[in-house]
Amino acid sequence: MDIKNNEEELLSQCFDSLFPICRSITGPGLEQSIALFKEYMPLQIEKIPTGTQVFDWEVPPEWHFKRARLWGPNGEVVCDTNESNLHVVNYSEPVNRSIELEELQKHLHSIPSLPEAIPYVTSYYNRSWGFCLPHKQRQELQPGTYKVEIDSSFFHEGGVPFAHCTIVGESSREILLTSYLCHPSLANNELSGPLVLLGLHNRIQQWSKRRFSYRFLLNPETIGSLCFLSKYYRHLQSNLEAGLILTCVGGPESNLKYKSSRMANSLFDSYVSYLADHNPTIWKALPFNPLGGSDERQYCSPGFNLPMGQISRTTYGQYDGYHNSLDTKEFMDIKQLIKTIDQLEAFLLDAEIAGKPLNLSPYGEPQLGKRGLYPNVNSPNNWRNSSDRMHDDRKVLNAILTILNLADGEHSILEIANLLDLPLDDLRPIIEKLESENLIRFNSEQNV
Amino acid sequence: MDIKNNEEELLSQCFDSLFPICRSITGPGLEQSIALFKEYMPLQIEKIPTGTQVFDWEVPPEWHFKRARLWGPNGEVVCDTNESNLHVVNYSEPVNRSIELEELQKHLHSIPSLPEAIPYVTSYYNRSWGFCLPHKQRQELQPGTYKVEIDSSFFHEGGVPFAHCTIVGESSREILLTSYLCHPSLANNELSGPLVLLGLHNRIQQWSKRRFSYRFLLNPETIGSLCFLSKYYRHLQSNLEAGLILTCVGGPESNLKYKSSRMANSLFDSYVSYLADHNPTIWKALPFNPLGGSDERQYCSPGFNLPMGQISRTTYGQYDGYHNSLDTKEFMDIKQLIKTIDQLEAFLLDAEIAGKPLNLSPYGEPQLGKRGLYPNVNSPNNWRNSSDRMHDDRKVLNAILTILNLADGEHSILEIANLLDLPLDDLRPIIEKLESENLIRFNSEQNV
Amino acid sequence: MDIKNNEEELLSQCFDSLFPICRSITGPGLEQSIALFKEYMPLQIEKIPTGTQVFDWEVPPEWHFKRARLWGPNGEVVCDTNESNLHVVNYSEPVNRSIELEELQKHLHSIPSLPEAIPYVTSYYNRSWGFCLPHKQRQELQPGTYKVEIDSSFFHEGGVPFAHCTIVGESSREILLTSYLCHPSLANNELSGPLVLLGLHNRIQQWSKRRFSYRFLLNPETIGSLCFLSKYYRHLQSNLEAGLILTCVGGPESNLKYKSSRMANSLFDSYVSYLADHNPTIWKALPFNPLGGSDERQYCSPGFNLPMGQISRTTYGQYDGYHNSLDTKEFMDIKQLIKTIDQLEAFLLDAEIAGKPLNLSPYGEPQLGKRGLYPNVNSPNNWRNSSDRMHDDRKVLNAILTILNLADGEHSILEIANLLDLPLDDLRPIIEKLESENLIRFNSEQNV
Repeated sequence: MDIKNNEEELLSQCFDSLFPICRSITGPGLEQSIALFKEYMPLQIEKIPTGTQVFDWEVPPEWHFKRARLWGPNGEVVCDTNESNLHVVNYSEPVNRSIELEELQKHLHSIPSLPEAIPYVTSYYNRSWGFCLPHKQRQELQPGTYKVEIDSSFFHEGGVPFAHCTIVGESSREILLTSYLCHPSLANNELSGPLVLLGLHNRIQQWSKRRFSYRFLLNPETIGSLCFLSKYYRHLQSNLEAGLILTCVGGPESNLKYKSSRMANSLFDSYVSYLADHNPTIWKALPFNPLGGSDERQYCSPGFNLPMGQISRTTYGQYDGYHNSLDTKEFMDIKQLIKTIDQLEAFLLDAEIAGKPLNLSPYGEPQLGKRGLYPNVNSPNNWRNSSDRMHDDRKVLNAILTILNLADGEHSILEIANLLDLPLDDLRPIIEKLESENLIRFNSEQNV
Repeated sequence: MDIKNNEEELLSQCFDSLFPICRSITGPGLEQSIALFKEYMPLQIEKIPTGTQVFDWEVPPEWHFKRARLWGPNGEVVCDTNESNLHVVNYSEPVNRSIELEELQKHLHSIPSLPEAIPYVTSYYNRSWGFCLPHKQRQELQPGTYKVEIDSSFFHEGGVPFAHCTIVGESSREILLTSYLCHPSLANNELSGPLVLLGLHNRIQQWSKRRFSYRFLLNPETIGSLCFLSKYYRHLQSNLEAGLILTCVGGPESNLKYKSSRMANSLFDSYVSYLADHNPTIWKALPFNPLGGSDERQYCSPGFNLPMGQISRTTYGQYDGYHNSLDTKEFMDIKQLIKTIDQLEAFLLDAEIAGKPLNLSPYGEPQLGKRGLYPNVNSPNNWRNSSDRMHDDRKVLNAILTILNLADGEHSILEIANLLDLPLDDLRPIIEKLESENLIRFNSEQNV
Repeated sequence: MDIKNNEEELLSQCFDSLFPICRSITGPGLEQSIALFKEYMPLQIEKIPTGTQVFDWEVPPEWHFKRARLWGPNGEVVCDTNESNLHVVNYSEPVNRSIELEELQKHLHSIPSLPEAIPYVTSYYNRSWGFCLPHKQRQELQPGTYKVEIDSSFFHEGGVPFAHCTIVGESSREILLTSYLCHPSLANNELSGPLVLLGLHNRIQQWSKRRFSYRFLLNPETIGSLCFLSKYYRHLQSNLEAGLILTCVGGPESNLKYKSSRMANSLFDSYVSYLADHNPTIWKALPFNPLGGSDERQYCSPGFNLPMGQISRTTYGQYDGYHNSLDTKEFMDIKQLIKTIDQLEAFLLDAEIAGKPLNLSPYGEPQLGKRGLYPNVNSPNNWRNSSDRMHDDRKVLNAILTILNLADGEHSILEIANLLDLPLDDLRPIIEKLESENLIRFNSEQNV
């Protein structure tokens, strides 16, 4: 069994454990889910107490939910969250009463255009309750008296948790990889992100060398990222090189979409823009916007303006199963998650050398000859000959001279690769040689 | 009688009182004209004494002029300033002598291509004298001895006056509206500017709310604005948001011409550039140049470089009557002044919200739900429904999110309107809602 | 005999004296060559001692070379540096031995594609030896035992010299004109540069006025410019306005090529870009690159980043005789050097007024009338008349107003000339008038 199969097996098992849990932005379902990830990553769990003011928000009480059921006039079960967590409006208040169909309708949610699907509905900050059911089923409901039982409560001694861990690299400059954990029983628009995060954690841990430090973060969407930011945003403002918010990273779509950060010139912004030009079948670059999307709405608010982009494959709002029961493991597809992990790992590896190098011997040309980087006898044989080797030597020398000349901390390897019209991978051995000769280093502290 | 008619009547009466006065850059005619405006606006009058060094200039003595006459060889009256102030070269020194036609010719001015027109000629800083007359009349002059009598004197105990008043708004940031008062008996190229200034003063006074403070300034051209600047340029450099120099704002031309400030990126520069794209039938944007024009040559000299643009309708140098007796009330047309006042009032009202807003809750998204600005139940019904109301709600939410995200004091409402592809007027209620919720304010102190 | 003929005669005689000397980057041949230039320019000679660390380099020992000979199996002379200095690999170590042809071949250099040419080969920093000969001759060498005698030695008490002098101008801002002196017996790619430098020195000395100071510098390529920079780079960073590295400035090519400095916005960069648009038959503008070329690789390394461009006519690497014995006086052509001197002198004269003027009376318009720069009587005759004189007066007034308005130290005369659509020469008298009236000065200290 090779490592790929192991990885696929691991992600599939995790998926199966996580899918049935009734998560929300707080509460036992969420904490149980975090605990499961903690088995595979050394997550540190922090919790911001209910009632804390977090920027413009107040941390809500925990939603402790057990079960919700709706019975019809003849005692038949209409909805039962033991069958699907989606049946209850997330954060419903406790109810135990009888109600006529006409009034009940105000508390029902369905999707006329998708008559088989149970929608996913939330009401976190406005006390309310409701049931979600297939539109087809809803249309068959008979007039009469229904019985509603929602066994939930609001717990004021709890809070909003988030969980993170860091793989330390050579530099204190950080790459933040994050996804949200809060939706119950949705696949592409919930578990795909945390599972790819786990996969990337395992891959990066195996790299022989890491120039950046990598932080992995799971939190409930919006309020969770705000809680994290309330404790770490000064740290991020000093240390964050770039980051990715993972959302909807599975599903059938063939290419990865990268939504730029608001600043639009982060390391990842520049690199994806380059990739979208060179590998359009894999990468698609989208401009930042604050409409829809995920936690980039918080990271990229004007007060923070952090270099966080967003990655998706089969994007929210653009597939039928978005926010309803059609968003299944089969639709998401574990193999598509592996593909995402492969592509993001390659991306992160390249991004490690895509930044702005600094010439450590910037006064005049360094003497390349004494380092074996220059032909020692300046003879026509060394530059007039058109043999392949000579041609390659000249290309390498040109690359060395160009990198050294532009290594002023203001030009990125991306720009240099573009100028030389060479793929980033061709520059990697040259960059590593120049680093080992102590002629350049990456100016990873450049934004500090 | 409605207000428009009142306004037209007022401007017409003012015109008739002002037109016959023999104004110059100093002296009783100018002061009498200022006094007339003071009846309608609370003008503060200041005077810089003759002999004062004002930047590279010296304040000239006052020109006290009574009457100038020229008699022909047979005692017939050739020119008499009681018939037209334009007959005398403005700032002529006193003369009382007889002179042969041949020598007299050196002191005569006429326009061959406009044989009926009396030209307007000045010689402020070089002692000289002369008469202006229709070319047709000049050609009929008979040889012989002419009698010249110019009853004028230079008064060294006076100075150059200017007059201004301010309508204070919420912010100390100022809009400066100014025109010149110095030409005698010209309509479009003299009285149109001060009369529109008076009209705007009356309109702005009636606004229910003013974000900016509005300063209204009248002065003789060039030396008068330099005198004003010598006392107020530090104040302007700290407080001036933008301004308009009004010149030739009547006449038959259908659109308003805005000549940009030298800095080319003032609030008004940006807004007119936007308007010229969207309403080309009303607005035409011209680049700054230091050739010809009016007091922008002083405000936009490199030492001051103030955000002052220039507004004209039927522009100096581009109509036959420019600087001669064909520039009449009929040509200027009081109704065209009202049109200018209407268009500039609308412009100024919009400019009040065209600037750069600042998000007062910039860390993360503000919680819109608790302010009734966000659907409280996040259900598909709230974003999938294509009914017009929902569609509008989504458009409003998008506008809110976009404004909040870009409200960093560096993006103007103009840019945001362009981005959203919405007219400025559609954003006004949203902006006012966000202001009333204390979520944004206009960063009117931005240039301080 | 006119001055042009004198100049041609002088350069031709200098050429003939210099060509036979066996120069290198150090040693008696180089010093003898410098001494010859010192007869015509007040050069100050400085020497950085062998063993000194100069940035990333170590100053090498001097190469003291007398003669190198290679005899064939039958005692016949194969190569003798008394016939051509190019026969020996420059910096060859001393040798006195017999050697079989097969082993000898590793020490021979020739150019198959140019069978008659002796190549120019160096091995400065890697101890080695060799002979250079025509490929045709090499192919006829018979197997057998050859005798090698290279009479050279390495002198460790010497160093690398450079020589410079300055013609002081009104400003301490400096123009640096430099060329390299190190190749033996090459014409276009060696003597053309120093000879044009000598010609420019003589021309500039005769100018009636110099706004900038002009420094003339000769040094061996690479290590010589690094030695100069090690002593003078702080001075240059404070004082250097722009400079030219002269290389291959003779030969048949019709236009001058200017390779931009790395900063790409120096006075010369901007001016050549303007010239290349307006006089493409004379000027060609090339972007900076750090590949090939001459001492700009040192001046424009990221640590220095000095405003040094490079001038060539028949460029290195682009003609057959490059770095071999076909690079002769006839190919270079003294008349082409004179053409280069003429064009560079005109360029430098214009560059003196191409910079950024500063308005010394920037608050409002200066009163032009009192300086005779403005029509004193503002009459239609002064601006409506279409006679040529009036038209010219208006053009001059427009130029005056435009220069004054843009003279803020940020706009160059080049930009202003472009804006006015006038050639630089038309502005020269206006600029000189404004300078004499103390209304502008050139902000030559702008980069300090």
